Amino acid sequence: MSNYMDIKEQAYAANMQLPKLGLVLFTFGNVSAADRNKGIFAIKPSGVPYEDLTAEKMVIVDFDGNTVEGNLRPSSDTKTHAVLYKHWEDIGGIVHTHSTYGTAWAQAQRAIPIFGTTHGDHLTVDIPCAPPMDDEMIKGNYEYETGFQIMNHFKSLGLSHKEVEMILVGNHAPFTWAKTAEKAVYNSAVLEAIAQMAILTEQINANAPRLKDSLIKKHYERKHGADAYYGQE
Amino acid sequence: MSNYMDIKEQAYAANMQLPKLGLVLFTFGNVSAADRNKGIFAIKPSGVPYEDLTAEKMVIVDFDGNTVEGNLRPSSDTKTHAVLYKHWEDIGGIVHTHSTYGTAWAQAQRAIPIFGTTHGDHLTVDIPCAPPMDDEMIKGNYEYETGFQIMNHFKSLGLSHKEVEMILVGNHAPFTWAKTAEKAVYNSAVLEAIAQMAILTEQINANAPRLKDSLIKKHYERKHGADAYYGQE
Amino acid sequence: MSNYMDIKEQAYAANMQLPKLGLVLFTFGNVSAADRNKGIFAIKPSGVPYEDLTAEKMVIVDFDGNTVEGNLRPSSDTKTHAVLYKHWEDIGGIVHTHSTYGTAWAQAQRAIPIFGTTHGDHLTVDIPCAPPMDDEMIKGNYEYETGFQIMNHFKSLGLSHKEVEMILVGNHAPFTWAKTAEKAVYNSAVLEAIAQMAILTEQINANAPRLKDSLIKKHYERKHGADAYYGQE
Amino acid sequence: MSNYMDIKEQAYAANMQLPKLGLVLFTFGNVSAADRNKGIFAIKPSGVPYEDLTAEKMVIVDFDGNTVEGNLRPSSDTKTHAVLYKHWEDIGGIVHTHSTYGTAWAQAQRAIPIFGTTHGDHLTVDIPCAPPMDDEMIKGNYEYETGFQIMNHFKSLGLSHKEVEMILVGNHAPFTWAKTAEKAVYNSAVLEAIAQMAILTEQINANAPRLKDSLIKKHYERKHGADAYYGQE
Repeated sequence: MSNYMDIKEQAYAANMQLPKLGLVLFTFGNVSAADRNKGIFAIKPSGVPYEDLTAEKMVIVDFDGNTVEGNLRPSSDTKTHAVLYKHWEDIGGIVHTHSTYGTAWAQAQRAIPIFGTTHGDHLTVDIPCAPPMDDEMIKGNYEYETGFQIMNHFKSLGLSHKEVEMILVGNHAPFTWAKTAEKAVYNSAVLEAIAQMAILTEQINANAPRLKDSLIKKHYERKHGADAYYGQE
Repeated sequence: MSNYMDIKEQAYAANMQLPKLGLVLFTFGNVSAADRNKGIFAIKPSGVPYEDLTAEKMVIVDFDGNTVEGNLRPSSDTKTHAVLYKHWEDIGGIVHTHSTYGTAWAQAQRAIPIFGTTHGDHLTVDIPCAPPMDDEMIKGNYEYETGFQIMNHFKSLGLSHKEVEMILVGNHAPFTWAKTAEKAVYNSAVLEAIAQMAILTEQINANAPRLKDSLIKKHYERKHGADAYYGQE
Repeated sequence: MSNYMDIKEQAYAANMQLPKLGLVLFTFGNVSAADRNKGIFAIKPSGVPYEDLTAEKMVIVDFDGNTVEGNLRPSSDTKTHAVLYKHWEDIGGIVHTHSTYGTAWAQAQRAIPIFGTTHGDHLTVDIPCAPPMDDEMIKGNYEYETGFQIMNHFKSLGLSHKEVEMILVGNHAPFTWAKTAEKAVYNSAVLEAIAQMAILTEQINANAPRLKDSLIKKHYERKHGADAYYGQE
Repeated sequence: MSNYMDIKEQAYAANMQLPKLGLVLFTFGNVSAADRNKGIFAIKPSGVPYEDLTAEKMVIVDFDGNTVEGNLRPSSDTKTHAVLYKHWEDIGGIVHTHSTYGTAWAQAQRAIPIFGTTHGDHLTVDIPCAPPMDDEMIKGNYEYETGFQIMNHFKSLGLSHKEVEMILVGNHAPFTWAKTAEKAVYNSAVLEAIAQMAILTEQINANAPRLKDSLIKKHYERKHGADAYYGQE
């Protein structure tokens, strides 16, 4: 019996939400869940169809990307997860999908403009889009460098990963994170909904204005401010 | 046992229609149902997932927005509902969603043009879009002011809330209402269908003409006129 | 026990296909099935939700639009059905929907161009779009005149209703027909699929060429010609 | 009892995946599976609804297109399958669909540009689009010539059918293939997902850049190179 069953169960449950929410086709996505006390995370094995997944099959990996437990090869994106867990010490879950609308914005290499309160309820800036990596990074330790590309883009924009829990990687697809894997999956679904609304908004009005600063502030504080009054907590 | 179980059951049943009709993701929507004799309405608690809702969990609120019964915090949009119930005395149900196409038009800050009889069967004018509120209103009692923004836009256009039972709030999303919560949910689904058809219509023909006045009149009277011959009543 | 149970069962089964195929929201559609020997057709009652329909509730109407049997009011579009049955003596089923893409083309008042073999497998011309009726027709016996508007547009284009079993009515929505109600429902689903592909085709290539004449001929003859070799008959 | 039950079962199972994956409406698609030792393939009978299919009903055909076993007429596209099996000796399954987005690109007569890693995980070039055939080919043995049109287009572009397992036929629709029927169905679903993302990408950014060469190389080698590290093999 594994010493990591709790975190494996969390990672398994979160992975199984992706097809249910319509965020993945076949195996095009992966979720990990971290156990900070044990210094590891549980992640989906590579290329295994969701209907064949079990909690036992989750692979345990440390924050340097080394497999600690598991007979299956971990997701090919494992090193990206490891880098983010190592450097962003307060996150507990990461999700990568190729969801349709989010991926289209990533392929278009554009940040998703903040057009309305659906967006503003979750973050106060455009959803950032990191540029594709330079050729040296790609030829090298690609998935490892993807993690740095994400962190560097946050630094260059002055963003905090605690306030903005999602990014597009140019030419590639979205990544999201949160304190828990469950919340990171929630963020992936929110990103996809916002991405679809944003393209429709531009199609309806090519000059659609961005959300007013006062509304950005108000909606974010409703959910996240000191006097938040959304939800039951 | 609550004295308000009847209206709670109505509000619960209407809320549960939203995910079934594809109008909400997670908790992005709320329905209320009013009991005019008792001077209260039942509304969804804030941030509770639809699968965890029960009739008992509905919160009872008076038309000034004060909670009358319930252990959970009511929807963060409760004051908007309260204002509309207080001033529009003949409505019995209100729905707020962030449905995909309706929200895209709201973000684009455009009224939805009346292009065909699907629209004309329900209202004879464009679906109105209130402008975003000014900064003072937003900084103040925001949800309360949202109700006034809706009513003021109806006044400025000379519209009757009895004839036009839906609006977009610019940068935000749709609100609908009706004599019952069930009918208000119906209106939300109709708005979403019309919103999708309207963007497609403009994409197929950028110069698509509006519905002819004679057809507007005919289709509306089929359903709503003195000699209505649609339905069984 | 009704003398018309056979045709009522056919009409009922065909009506129930509409929500299953995603062609209707709420009650926005109707199917009828004709019994030529008895000189009547069975049609959906007006405004009754699909989940409440039964075969017994279908209304029996003659080809002049008079109700022959049934306690419920027939569909508000009944006279359009009656006119088409009366004048096109070889059709046995008619369908009217407000399906999303078909209705968008009708609202855009454009015929759907024949862009590919999916279209060519079913008809050799653009899916016609009748212009909105003139005001006198609308003010008069509107649904009755809708039938004539359809027939007149076919005459003006030199089309045969035996070869082209579908039309858009401008500002309104699609109508389809066939020898049976079941086949007419099939035609409605085909129209909707073609309508969606056609708008996407124009979006991908604003100058997309029409299907070549030789391909139109070939694909149509595969299914409908003297030497047809599609299907099992 | 048929001597071909194994391959019939494979073809049946693969055909039944098409409606489950949303790739077909009614009977608009067909899958075949080849048994190279026996020199035959099993293919869907023509025009039979998926809900009426059984493994027994699959038709056995040789690589010249002659029916070897079966009471039903094989798919009208059978000769296209036969030609490809005869000339491309290492493929074991072929799929033809009229899936919505893939067909729209085929109708637009454009190859699908490689915009991102979702595409690059599967092939390193644009998804090719063969031009419509010339009139002589169409008038002649049409489905047989469709196979040659596909092969000729691959030759003209210098593509290998082992590396690129999908094509659009202009004005018509997609064809995919692979070593097995199951994998060919997977390719059809991948093509449809890529096709949808590509049109959205162009709508979000009309000047969206193609995937960088270094990223194309990296993502393809992750899955297909000598040092592949995707999946469990």
